[in-house]
Amino acid sequence: MRKTWIALALLAVVLLLHGGLLTGAQPPDPEPAPAAQAPAEPPAGHASPVLPVLLGVVVILTAAKLGGAIFERFHQPAVLGELVFGVLLGNLALFGYTGVEFLGTTEGIEILAELGVILLLFDVGLESNLDEMKSVGASSLVVAVLGVVAPFFLGWGVSAWMIPDEELLVHIFIGATLCATSVGITARVLADLGKLQKRESKIVLGAAVIDDVLGLVILAVVAGVITAAGTGGTLSSLAILWIVVKAILFLGGAILLGTWLSPRMFRVASRLRIQGWLLIVSLVFCFSLAYLANVLGLATIVGAFAAGLILDEVHYRDFLDAGEHSIEELIHPIYVFLVPIFFVLMGIRVDLSTFGQVSVLGFAAVLSVAAIIGKMICAAGVLEKGLDRVSVAVGMVPRGEVGLIFASIGASLVLHGEPVISSEVYSAVVIMVIVTTLITPPALKWTLARGERHRAAAAPAIE
Amino acid sequence: MRKTWIALALLAVVLLLHGGLLTGAQPPDPEPAPAAQAPAEPPAGHASPVLPVLLGVVVILTAAKLGGAIFERFHQPAVLGELVFGVLLGNLALFGYTGVEFLGTTEGIEILAELGVILLLFDVGLESNLDEMKSVGASSLVVAVLGVVAPFFLGWGVSAWMIPDEELLVHIFIGATLCATSVGITARVLADLGKLQKRESKIVLGAAVIDDVLGLVILAVVAGVITAAGTGGTLSSLAILWIVVKAILFLGGAILLGTWLSPRMFRVASRLRIQGWLLIVSLVFCFSLAYLANVLGLATIVGAFAAGLILDEVHYRDFLDAGEHSIEELIHPIYVFLVPIFFVLMGIRVDLSTFGQVSVLGFAAVLSVAAIIGKMICAAGVLEKGLDRVSVAVGMVPRGEVGLIFASIGASLVLHGEPVISSEVYSAVVIMVIVTTLITPPALKWTLARGERHRAAAAPAIE
Repeated sequence: MRKTWIALALLAVVLLLHGGLLTGAQPPDPEPAPAAQAPAEPPAGHASPVLPVLLGVVVILTAAKLGGAIFERFHQPAVLGELVFGVLLGNLALFGYTGVEFLGTTEGIEILAELGVILLLFDVGLESNLDEMKSVGASSLVVAVLGVVAPFFLGWGVSAWMIPDEELLVHIFIGATLCATSVGITARVLADLGKLQKRESKIVLGAAVIDDVLGLVILAVVAGVITAAGTGGTLSSLAILWIVVKAILFLGGAILLGTWLSPRMFRVASRLRIQGWLLIVSLVFCFSLAYLANVLGLATIVGAFAAGLILDEVHYRDFLDAGEHSIEELIHPIYVFLVPIFFVLMGIRVDLSTFGQVSVLGFAAVLSVAAIIGKMICAAGVLEKGLDRVSVAVGMVPRGEVGLIFASIGASLVLHGEPVISSEVYSAVVIMVIVTTLITPPALKWTLARGERHRAAAAPAIE
Repeated sequence: MRKTWIALALLAVVLLLHGGLLTGAQPPDPEPAPAAQAPAEPPAGHASPVLPVLLGVVVILTAAKLGGAIFERFHQPAVLGELVFGVLLGNLALFGYTGVEFLGTTEGIEILAELGVILLLFDVGLESNLDEMKSVGASSLVVAVLGVVAPFFLGWGVSAWMIPDEELLVHIFIGATLCATSVGITARVLADLGKLQKRESKIVLGAAVIDDVLGLVILAVVAGVITAAGTGGTLSSLAILWIVVKAILFLGGAILLGTWLSPRMFRVASRLRIQGWLLIVSLVFCFSLAYLANVLGLATIVGAFAAGLILDEVHYRDFLDAGEHSIEELIHPIYVFLVPIFFVLMGIRVDLSTFGQVSVLGFAAVLSVAAIIGKMICAAGVLEKGLDRVSVAVGMVPRGEVGLIFASIGASLVLHGEPVISSEVYSAVVIMVIVTTLITPPALKWTLARGERHRAAAAPAIE
């Protein structure tokens, strides 16, 4: 424990030094100058946009590793420590220290964080493969559909009950916000606990991906309807259908085409025999599908997961035979570098000061309960017997980054001159996201352990 | 060769598809919205600043690896292929294709490139160590001083001769622009050829670092004088002295403090025993020194090199004993990902259309010759006998990113209402940077091979 405090003291020194340096020297520019633009004032020292990123990465990685170390010491998943230390970092202003406020507003840090979550889902995809996905496909599909339908109507109902003055479309939008599942948190917890290979894990991950697609389709449709209503028109059912078809075409197409293309791509690459080819080809493939997913109106992480799902060791046997590491091993250092940035940044974005408003807290509490109950119904969707249904349901609870994205889209949509999601509702949705996200790692750890104890107790009776 | 063309065709398809998708769907936003701002228009698909970065990284990494593959096939260093393919990418607009213009203006890509060059210099520093630096210290110091003084006065003279109407301070500034050595290019060529451990390489790398410090000190002083002249004042000799002292204090201080701190830092970290600590501690250390260097008015890469120089396997023996990879191995995948982005981006920033102006070309040619001759004088600075002096001098030739940074600072400094570096002079300086940068890899490869043939021929005679 003493070592942890030494490390904590070091972090404090860095931050204090930074605060001092900021007043004494060049501040990291929160709105960096356009690229290739040199600083207007000497002494030299190039005021490049990389500067706040360098400082930010130093602070974030230090916080991430300290938070992770402390939480692991108390037998909690490291990711929870990263989130909590992120919340602390993001709210130091409440204690009068504003030296780290640039962390949440620096675009470069956001980009690294998003590359991090893309790599996280790519890695999750790599750890799965299509045949396994198919074997849990039926359960995943039922779990996913229940996990979308139940929270949607629960959220709609809660919203109509708690804020009856708002319009119908607002209630529908809040319902949509509750649909998403953030596979990132669950995947990270399962990875930290070494449970990614469990059948329950595969059902959750498969369902979370289907859920993400379903949720994004609902969001796209609801947002389309709201925009049409805002401009006095209506969205044609053809347009709604097109959004749905696009999503299905992307996943199906990516998997079909990718399964055909990726062995050929690797064969070409392996014959060129250049240092680092395997890693580069994998990254290019992952980023291409992530980009393509977005072009089609889906989340980048859906594309990254599809990319990981498609790539299989069989495809790059030539590289492995030549003594190269596997893609997972090659990706790992980049993962270690970027993924914690994402989780700390998610924590940083949380504004603790909204927690002070009682009405916000009340709505947030009801919304959180609806969000949790809505996903617990997923347990009924596990078709196979003998599996740990509760863990599957708990794994579906976190809304994470997807929930935050939904909320921010709602805040930007305008209906009759006002944002669909008002700032109070926004705060409540953000709190719901935090609660569902923070509750999952310890809950999942607990239910998994309980499930294993049950099975261990049951096993002798069967034998 | 056929495989290369298949790969080239694939890149073409990606770019054409991109062009088509851009007109059909969401363009990657060249001026991304502020962080956490959601898109104002559905259908969903989050218009995050990561999108142009994803697409850019895909295009850049593909171009880098294809360029590298093609140049290696013709027995040239891969880095040259990355630069040339960068130039091609950056000037596709000349052939009417503007789909990749965002590559040079997307801040996220610039940030990844700068992280790349920081990691490159960190890696170079890791491959060196202080004792070796000391053993070549005398030669490096003389080579560096010659490599700053000679180009400075040659550049000043050439400028006074070619553009006599400009003010004295402009000539001095152009002289300063010629001082820098871009250790990045040379280090990369030496690494590609597997020659980093040669004594000549160590002299060049040591000299390039000293040169960088000297050049940046000169730049800081000249820029300070110009700003003072611009506002009607003069820079006190005390202020000039302070810039000089700061640079020396930083390097000396970093090395002294770092040598004391780093084993302790690793000891604390190793006792916390968390996954990925060694990599994270190394990155945090590297980025901290890079940031600190900039705060003191030096280039970030100077700090990164110092960080690499300080870290030594002895310091993290505990990690190696626990079965962790060495820092070099851990950094390698991140290096493979980010470093090519830097070199391709340097190529992209080249505007081939300036090559069409005859007066610019004339000044550029004379400036390039001065830049090359100025550094060839470095050969006289190699104090030891039997070494390949010409290779040392050639290794000092490239101006690379440092030259580009100097030129852009000159373009942003204003003297009597006009920029110190006019757009024509800027083009000429950029061409000089390109020529010295492009010429070095093949020249260095040739002189190194020649030097080895000479020694092989001389060896029997001595025996």
